[in-house]
Amino acid sequence: MDFVNPYGRVYVLRIGHRPGRDKRVTTHVGLVARAFGANGFVLEGCDESVLESLRKVMRVWGGSMVVECCSSGVEYVRSWKASGGEVVHLTMYGLPLDDVIDVIRVSPRPKLVIVGAEKVERFYYEESDYNVAVGNQPHSEVSALALFLDRLFRGRWAYIEFRGAKLRILPSSRGKMVVRVGGGRGEPDEGSGDVH
Amino acid sequence: MDFVNPYGRVYVLRIGHRPGRDKRVTTHVGLVARAFGANGFVLEGCDESVLESLRKVMRVWGGSMVVECCSSGVEYVRSWKASGGEVVHLTMYGLPLDDVIDVIRVSPRPKLVIVGAEKVERFYYEESDYNVAVGNQPHSEVSALALFLDRLFRGRWAYIEFRGAKLRILPSSRGKMVVRVGGGRGEPDEGSGDVH
Repeated sequence: MDFVNPYGRVYVLRIGHRPGRDKRVTTHVGLVARAFGANGFVLEGCDESVLESLRKVMRVWGGSMVVECCSSGVEYVRSWKASGGEVVHLTMYGLPLDDVIDVIRVSPRPKLVIVGAEKVERFYYEESDYNVAVGNQPHSEVSALALFLDRLFRGRWAYIEFRGAKLRILPSSRGKMVVRVGGGRGEPDEGSGDVH
Repeated sequence: MDFVNPYGRVYVLRIGHRPGRDKRVTTHVGLVARAFGANGFVLEGCDESVLESLRKVMRVWGGSMVVECCSSGVEYVRSWKASGGEVVHLTMYGLPLDDVIDVIRVSPRPKLVIVGAEKVERFYYEESDYNVAVGNQPHSEVSALALFLDRLFRGRWAYIEFRGAKLRILPSSRGKMVVRVGGGRGEPDEGSGDVH
């Protein structure tokens, strides 16, 4: 089954990224965006090491997610809304995912999903169309994004085919089986970035 | 609705933690364990800063998850199995979550869910009862664990009541509403650790 995103664009905007401290968590946010079906990842602040990690994963494992950066998350949100898109802000203070996801899912508008770091400016709470909580407990922006995209796309991430992949995993009950697309055996761990 | 875990114990074992580099990601793994219904978090290698972060979140936001460390993940797995428990290893090389979760769910045995860092020893692939992939794509151990627990407990994390919480969030369409349990207004951000 091929994965068809019915919204045209579902982009993830990571705001408040602090280059030293957040590099790994932000990279995980970007990897989740790709693996769970978003078609764009935008990083506020141009941390090339994060962007390059994501591009490297895409060169090996395929897919065509847009990876870019912007200098101001606020400006990015303004222009997203001005062009007719809607904005979802993930925050533990928001409305329960289960209560709002159906409303978000039926709207055909392009969606910008905002994922914050520790402090988030008031602007995002006020200007987002939806403030959504994946549980009202502290956990992680990585897990919050994964659950949000899972519910938005009704679990179809499991069937996405990532075009242009050089390596593909053959699911295995023990060990690692990786094939090179177009023939040959891949090297496990080659460019895998993370265990999951 | 109160959350009843039918397995007695669902523990998460984080292996291969590197104190400097992995502190934040490992803390997120621990927070996900708690928020999504595990009742124990075990860290291989006793990094007190991670354990203390988790305990702090529990003092503020409640819950009774066991938080502990062990010197050897291998020994921990051996003794878990010796006492009749089963072991699930999350890895992008494993069998698809959707294909195995029903089998895992119906078994009443206590479950140890292993979450690795970058390199995972062969032992874990061989000795686990299940090697499970939350998609065969690289993303994050944080998101993999969240999805696994979500499917295991059929989304009941949304209804867990964390006993002994000092603060509780009132879901809000805009802004932050936090109450102090037993009366009064809480301070948003107090001990929240992370945005989500």
